[in-house]
Amino acid sequence: MSKTAVSTENAPKPPAKFSQAVRKGNLLQVAGQVAFDPATGAIVGDDVAGQTRQTFKNIEAVLAAAGSSLADAIMVRVYLTDTAHFAPFNEVYDELIGDEPQPARTTVYVGLPGELLVEIDVLCVLD
Amino acid sequence: MSKTAVSTENAPKPPAKFSQAVRKGNLLQVAGQVAFDPATGAIVGDDVAGQTRQTFKNIEAVLAAAGSSLADAIMVRVYLTDTAHFAPFNEVYDELIGDEPQPARTTVYVGLPGELLVEIDVLCVLD
Amino acid sequence: MSKTAVSTENAPKPPAKFSQAVRKGNLLQVAGQVAFDPATGAIVGDDVAGQTRQTFKNIEAVLAAAGSSLADAIMVRVYLTDTAHFAPFNEVYDELIGDEPQPARTTVYVGLPGELLVEIDVLCVLD
Repeated sequence: MSKTAVSTENAPKPPAKFSQAVRKGNLLQVAGQVAFDPATGAIVGDDVAGQTRQTFKNIEAVLAAAGSSLADAIMVRVYLTDTAHFAPFNEVYDELIGDEPQPARTTVYVGLPGELLVEIDVLCVLD
Repeated sequence: MSKTAVSTENAPKPPAKFSQAVRKGNLLQVAGQVAFDPATGAIVGDDVAGQTRQTFKNIEAVLAAAGSSLADAIMVRVYLTDTAHFAPFNEVYDELIGDEPQPARTTVYVGLPGELLVEIDVLCVLD
Repeated sequence: MSKTAVSTENAPKPPAKFSQAVRKGNLLQVAGQVAFDPATGAIVGDDVAGQTRQTFKNIEAVLAAAGSSLADAIMVRVYLTDTAHFAPFNEVYDELIGDEPQPARTTVYVGLPGELLVEIDVLCVLD
């Protein structure tokens, strides 16, 4: 069974030796995405809502490069930095996550580097 | 390959657009469960041990609704809020996790909303 | 489909009822590994770089006991305790993670018990 790395210039370049996503068999795992602009590396969005929009853009770019989409997602892991961000995060999440059947999700509150407010990774099962 | 959302009134209703669990192929991912009473939304348990018992009830309700059980679990992700809770958590965990072969586990310490002391999600491979 | 626990004396003994790794079907999930010496239980390494080396040794021992290796990994979840550790962690990570196609990765900053500075778990898809 071959293992394939996904690489696209439409999502941020990984800062270490990991793949933006990797596929093996029918599993596709997307690495933790944040709100970096793929072209400049600058954070897009000055609040959790704005950063979440850019994070979803990056996730969708990686999924598209793999021939997949959020419709294949079974799990979304959300890392926020402040419990006060839960409501504004969910507002954007609910707008962007797509139709039912929606993936499962876990949300926890952690530290993230610099001004990052959200990190998200996604596990997909491909058809 | 069809993707199916699991939904049961015997576990807390998700506070955003995500599924309590989702199945695609032979993978079943249970969303992060906490100690909410499914009927009232109130936290059950006034310490980590008590909250862990309710969290397991919710996990088992979701698994049952999917026709699965902890016997299918390969990974349990545990989020606690205080390293001092590790011992009392483990005491309940070891009572409830079931017989060998037991799933793998990762435990880390994060922030959780309000008075929540534990969150757990589970990945299963179905037969 | 049988579920099999992986057990080796070459990696730390789990402190609760979970498996060092478990395989079901073609999925192999390695439990969160830290820098404990398998023989003594003492932390190996007095900084994040040193602890990361021991953590990788433990991961590789578990993978070897399962007949696998990092070449099968699709996801590496990294838990650090301080954003200042990102650079020295990556230096060791990039040395040890192996050739392309490399797994996806998520790195977040959490609390860990005692003097632990890093915890890592790995999801593999076996051939």
